[in-house]
Amino acid sequence: MLGNTFGRLFRVTTCGEAYGEALQAIVDGVPPGLELSEADIQPDLDRRRPGQSEITSPRGETDQVKIVSGVLNGYTTGAPVGMIIYNVDVLPTDAVYPRHLAQYEADKELAIPGHADYTYYVKYGRFRDWRGCGRANGRETAARVAAGALAKKLLAREGVRVVAYTKALGGVHAREMDVDGKHSLDEIVDRAESNVARCPDLEAAEKMIQRALEAGRQGDTVGGIVEAIVRGMPPGVGDPVFDKLSASIAHALMSIGSVKGIEFGAGFALADKMGSQGNDSPYVDGDRVRFRSNNAGGLLGGITNGDDIVVRIIVKPTPLISVEQHTVDMVEMEDVTLSSKARHDPTIVPRVVPVVEAMMAIVLVDHLMMWRGYSAFVKESI
Amino acid sequence: MLGNTFGRLFRVTTCGEAYGEALQAIVDGVPPGLELSEADIQPDLDRRRPGQSEITSPRGETDQVKIVSGVLNGYTTGAPVGMIIYNVDVLPTDAVYPRHLAQYEADKELAIPGHADYTYYVKYGRFRDWRGCGRANGRETAARVAAGALAKKLLAREGVRVVAYTKALGGVHAREMDVDGKHSLDEIVDRAESNVARCPDLEAAEKMIQRALEAGRQGDTVGGIVEAIVRGMPPGVGDPVFDKLSASIAHALMSIGSVKGIEFGAGFALADKMGSQGNDSPYVDGDRVRFRSNNAGGLLGGITNGDDIVVRIIVKPTPLISVEQHTVDMVEMEDVTLSSKARHDPTIVPRVVPVVEAMMAIVLVDHLMMWRGYSAFVKESI
Amino acid sequence: MLGNTFGRLFRVTTCGEAYGEALQAIVDGVPPGLELSEADIQPDLDRRRPGQSEITSPRGETDQVKIVSGVLNGYTTGAPVGMIIYNVDVLPTDAVYPRHLAQYEADKELAIPGHADYTYYVKYGRFRDWRGCGRANGRETAARVAAGALAKKLLAREGVRVVAYTKALGGVHAREMDVDGKHSLDEIVDRAESNVARCPDLEAAEKMIQRALEAGRQGDTVGGIVEAIVRGMPPGVGDPVFDKLSASIAHALMSIGSVKGIEFGAGFALADKMGSQGNDSPYVDGDRVRFRSNNAGGLLGGITNGDDIVVRIIVKPTPLISVEQHTVDMVEMEDVTLSSKARHDPTIVPRVVPVVEAMMAIVLVDHLMMWRGYSAFVKESI
Amino acid sequence: MLGNTFGRLFRVTTCGEAYGEALQAIVDGVPPGLELSEADIQPDLDRRRPGQSEITSPRGETDQVKIVSGVLNGYTTGAPVGMIIYNVDVLPTDAVYPRHLAQYEADKELAIPGHADYTYYVKYGRFRDWRGCGRANGRETAARVAAGALAKKLLAREGVRVVAYTKALGGVHAREMDVDGKHSLDEIVDRAESNVARCPDLEAAEKMIQRALEAGRQGDTVGGIVEAIVRGMPPGVGDPVFDKLSASIAHALMSIGSVKGIEFGAGFALADKMGSQGNDSPYVDGDRVRFRSNNAGGLLGGITNGDDIVVRIIVKPTPLISVEQHTVDMVEMEDVTLSSKARHDPTIVPRVVPVVEAMMAIVLVDHLMMWRGYSAFVKESI
Repeated sequence: MLGNTFGRLFRVTTCGEAYGEALQAIVDGVPPGLELSEADIQPDLDRRRPGQSEITSPRGETDQVKIVSGVLNGYTTGAPVGMIIYNVDVLPTDAVYPRHLAQYEADKELAIPGHADYTYYVKYGRFRDWRGCGRANGRETAARVAAGALAKKLLAREGVRVVAYTKALGGVHAREMDVDGKHSLDEIVDRAESNVARCPDLEAAEKMIQRALEAGRQGDTVGGIVEAIVRGMPPGVGDPVFDKLSASIAHALMSIGSVKGIEFGAGFALADKMGSQGNDSPYVDGDRVRFRSNNAGGLLGGITNGDDIVVRIIVKPTPLISVEQHTVDMVEMEDVTLSSKARHDPTIVPRVVPVVEAMMAIVLVDHLMMWRGYSAFVKESI
Repeated sequence: MLGNTFGRLFRVTTCGEAYGEALQAIVDGVPPGLELSEADIQPDLDRRRPGQSEITSPRGETDQVKIVSGVLNGYTTGAPVGMIIYNVDVLPTDAVYPRHLAQYEADKELAIPGHADYTYYVKYGRFRDWRGCGRANGRETAARVAAGALAKKLLAREGVRVVAYTKALGGVHAREMDVDGKHSLDEIVDRAESNVARCPDLEAAEKMIQRALEAGRQGDTVGGIVEAIVRGMPPGVGDPVFDKLSASIAHALMSIGSVKGIEFGAGFALADKMGSQGNDSPYVDGDRVRFRSNNAGGLLGGITNGDDIVVRIIVKPTPLISVEQHTVDMVEMEDVTLSSKARHDPTIVPRVVPVVEAMMAIVLVDHLMMWRGYSAFVKESI
Repeated sequence: MLGNTFGRLFRVTTCGEAYGEALQAIVDGVPPGLELSEADIQPDLDRRRPGQSEITSPRGETDQVKIVSGVLNGYTTGAPVGMIIYNVDVLPTDAVYPRHLAQYEADKELAIPGHADYTYYVKYGRFRDWRGCGRANGRETAARVAAGALAKKLLAREGVRVVAYTKALGGVHAREMDVDGKHSLDEIVDRAESNVARCPDLEAAEKMIQRALEAGRQGDTVGGIVEAIVRGMPPGVGDPVFDKLSASIAHALMSIGSVKGIEFGAGFALADKMGSQGNDSPYVDGDRVRFRSNNAGGLLGGITNGDDIVVRIIVKPTPLISVEQHTVDMVEMEDVTLSSKARHDPTIVPRVVPVVEAMMAIVLVDHLMMWRGYSAFVKESI
Repeated sequence: MLGNTFGRLFRVTTCGEAYGEALQAIVDGVPPGLELSEADIQPDLDRRRPGQSEITSPRGETDQVKIVSGVLNGYTTGAPVGMIIYNVDVLPTDAVYPRHLAQYEADKELAIPGHADYTYYVKYGRFRDWRGCGRANGRETAARVAAGALAKKLLAREGVRVVAYTKALGGVHAREMDVDGKHSLDEIVDRAESNVARCPDLEAAEKMIQRALEAGRQGDTVGGIVEAIVRGMPPGVGDPVFDKLSASIAHALMSIGSVKGIEFGAGFALADKMGSQGNDSPYVDGDRVRFRSNNAGGLLGGITNGDDIVVRIIVKPTPLISVEQHTVDMVEMEDVTLSSKARHDPTIVPRVVPVVEAMMAIVLVDHLMMWRGYSAFVKESI
């Protein structure tokens, strides 16, 4: 069944499973004349890949991307950009993979609570890929990040910047950064990238890391909140009615595994406010309109108003834990208990950060291209 | 620009503005053999239409729907179902419309804070429909509700039921209903529909209504939260990766005007839980798998697990208030103050309830048809 | 099942059956600022409607279109344009309809040879619309023509003109017009529209009409060929690989009922030519490139080369004849003979001409908008 | 710009250029449980690849396909199938490639008459891939053939067979095979595959080969006609109005480079027939309906009638010839003459045959899945 393509004018198609041979991404709609090499893609892959820290996954993937089409002499040609990431951890010489695989095979008839085994089993039956739940495993997001890095580079050329960071982890909530005043976007990014929790509030970050390590020691996991800020989007971007930019962003971010909610600007807090408190007052600032507050998160009627787009998602705690759990054998249809022996990730939240940036960048390029047209992107570059 | 079509196999296309002549909906992908007449559509339109109560809009629309194609001798034929809703309030003989229109025309160069005037002006320029902001006005949702009523009837035939109600309004939050134990779905619906707040917690409902009336007296407005429950969806529905059912639902609900966030199951509260607390344990119940809790909101890996789908959206307070506000003249590019004389809706939350049901039903039929195939729906009916 | 929406950025959705109450068309992606009224749409509807001449259909439809949304004060607003065409011939006061309908009902279990009764019966079963085969009847093309007239007006603003005419009818083939030399496009159109065969070769037209009348007298029908010419398309329009403009045009024109083939430029004759004969040599003419011949029909690699797009379709003879034919009773599954008593159209070819123009215009606007972007169309008009 | 994805429920996305590093194909919508390995794909790639005979291309590609995802233990899993074909001829150790590349680079500012250089240059500018015109080169069809082989295997499981062969080449037209009577489909395929012209009429094949060789000796090329027959499609497949199966097939086949026309059944010959001659009379044969003739090519109202689908395309002579031609320097904007020194393919028609089968198979699986639903394909296989 479908689901492996995203976007209308800037369109990303991916394939590849957690323990398959390779991931592929084909990015269609890339304008010609963008300087591009693997060096533009790799840094975001490195931010996402497993094995970065004690609080995330120990899997030994190098996530080296190779561009095989769409680029000539260092510049995009307008043809779709094809990328491959080989899964090296699956090689027989590696110590981690065979152990994981053996565990997955042994447990393949059991539904890991909170995971997609059960729903994939119902949908695809006994031929489904049981190796780490195949496409339902977060590994597929490496292909999203590769495509997203390209999208981010395109946006940068248009003066648009997308950043994300951890806002909450394991019950610890970061203080609000004063993005327009005291803290520049650069400072926020620098702070967030300085710690393995990827949180710009350094005090909170320290607590988050302790909380994650503690959960890990207990064989348990923690969830959190990721916030993204987009600066530089021109006003007027987004389609009315069914394809509001907010709806498209929600589609994009909710498609990331483990995400159970999303909110823009003041979000759920607006439920308790009055109109006079929730409205953002516009004012004239030279030749442009600005707003005195940003409860709307940069979107009015689903269309950009020129202010920062601000969005948050909630990432549930990773379901794979080693604490004993009650579950079912899906084939025998009987109740069983499951106590996973494999080592698990205390949290995936910091690794979701670059995935959020990637999906945001993809959906923004798509809407921007819808608005300005493909040729607008071509002409600038020649 | 686009945005007026939703769905892949069950596809809804709408048109029509707040103060235009008529709204149209074309529903494609309707299987033959469904008994259908205007009487199936009208009740949901009546739940959405303005003029129902003191706490919502006073506009005098009757919202009578007329089916003009796709039905023969009382049954659908498999051809697209075309529906028309004429805007009767726009007639010159009506007292409300000319006054509204004059106000809109007088203020057409002013950006109503929190409304889409500014973004539509940037996008479409001086030819945009300034009459109540045209397509950005909630009036377009009447066409969604008409299409959704058809979708609900199709779902009912498949044993699937979609209900929604007000969960919070004006800062008043309803108590959690015990949907599986003490309170049946029927009871919840009966209670919710028994009051103008559309809230099943009758005590809370009373407070909500007072809060809305009070806001109305102050020329202000209140927002709230709408919750939807879907019962009877078979497990296995939803596509992997980018088109998860959760992502599609988020797209559908976030496309409703004034919605600023969405969450499934335990939602944002999961950010503070551990994996062992967040996972729902499955167990065998006869020939099916059930779950001991529903933090996941009925979706694992974006695919239905057979449990209730539970989703909540936050509806911001309506931006149109009569309290004086600072804003800008978009044409003259100067700061002005705006103090609207028109009567406004204290809240739109109870009227959003049927819109949520409609969008849920549309997206569920689409995914179900994707899974079972169009012919599965045809064969059942002949 | 689907099929009632066409286009990507400029998107047309239609509904309505041969003997239903009304046809609807919703045109999405219309830029704001286009002067538009029913007077722009009606002339093409009049060219398509039945009852124009002895050689086409006698049905008494007036095909009056009504625009109900997307236009304010005579200009498009950027919102989707909604149009309605009521079927007036279905009124009980009319003499033609009840007779037709009675005939259709009497024969509803018989497969009219060459018509879609059989395939619709297999697909939709007993609930299908048997009144003139519902959506499979050419009546649905009225909605295409309404949408196409809007597209033609948009193209005219961009300097692009689409014309079509009858190239062959009942075995009579028109001489090649010398479009670049002796005969201007205006002259060709004037000649074509001067006769009921819609053929610019007046001598051939006379023979065509005789042939059609003769066929009509025998209770038989004739087919033919329609040619379309597009002048003024800028070079560079069309997408590579799967969405070549030639592929999109083929999709658009082959979707018209009774069309069984299509060819571009020299078409099937190229099968017998050598590369040195088939290639069109380019040359420099001032600041643009022109071609010494147009075997390619204006498209290279599926992308416009700036020369005229030239395309031809073959329209099979209308299947509905009064000559006795062998067929089957689809319900009883037995062989029967059918000798229709109703009056039939000797040919539909002249009425297909405006439908071809409409579909060409729709697909060209879609590709042009894909290339230049929606905003390019907006800016020009404000 | 887009164009690199085809299909709705069974969806093929490709990338890769003539002289890039690799081609990729991602096939989405593949049901689980289909036995699949490279051995199922390779034979069709071998039928398409260059270097097969004197009358086609001499390029030394081995076209070895590698499946990297979507298959586990020899069976599809329901995840998208990812395939890679590396371009080995591009290696520096090869004698052919550097010569070709040098020629392409030397001529990169010249528009090869009949080729897409000019239109790609206008569209993508100086960053376009000038190496054999990148995506406009027939090399991209290797990815189509890989995806198509998978589609053919799926169809075979449903009892549907797609075959194609050369019907005309260099002005030589094959006699009509008597497909239902004297010659079985097997016999036609065996005969066609027995000669390098891929023509089942062996006498004509011999003349075709001579004609192609002669053209080659003159530095010229020849075109031809490819015919496809589909047997075993159930009646009722195809969508009404805009997405008729005939329209989808036309889209699919016209998207193949060099194709300038398409016709179904009796095709253009129907222009000269009368209704009584063109209609195919149905009759009852046991529990199914058959037809006495097949002028319709198996499609009525764009929906399958259960008879063979018969379709023909015209392939223009390959534009790349060594005969001296007049053309333009696109950068300097001046007239020049071009006399290519490189060795060329006398014809591509026999190599287009497997590409036609591939595109037919892809579009048929897509429509069949639309009709029966994805789950219908799943259930059969478990």
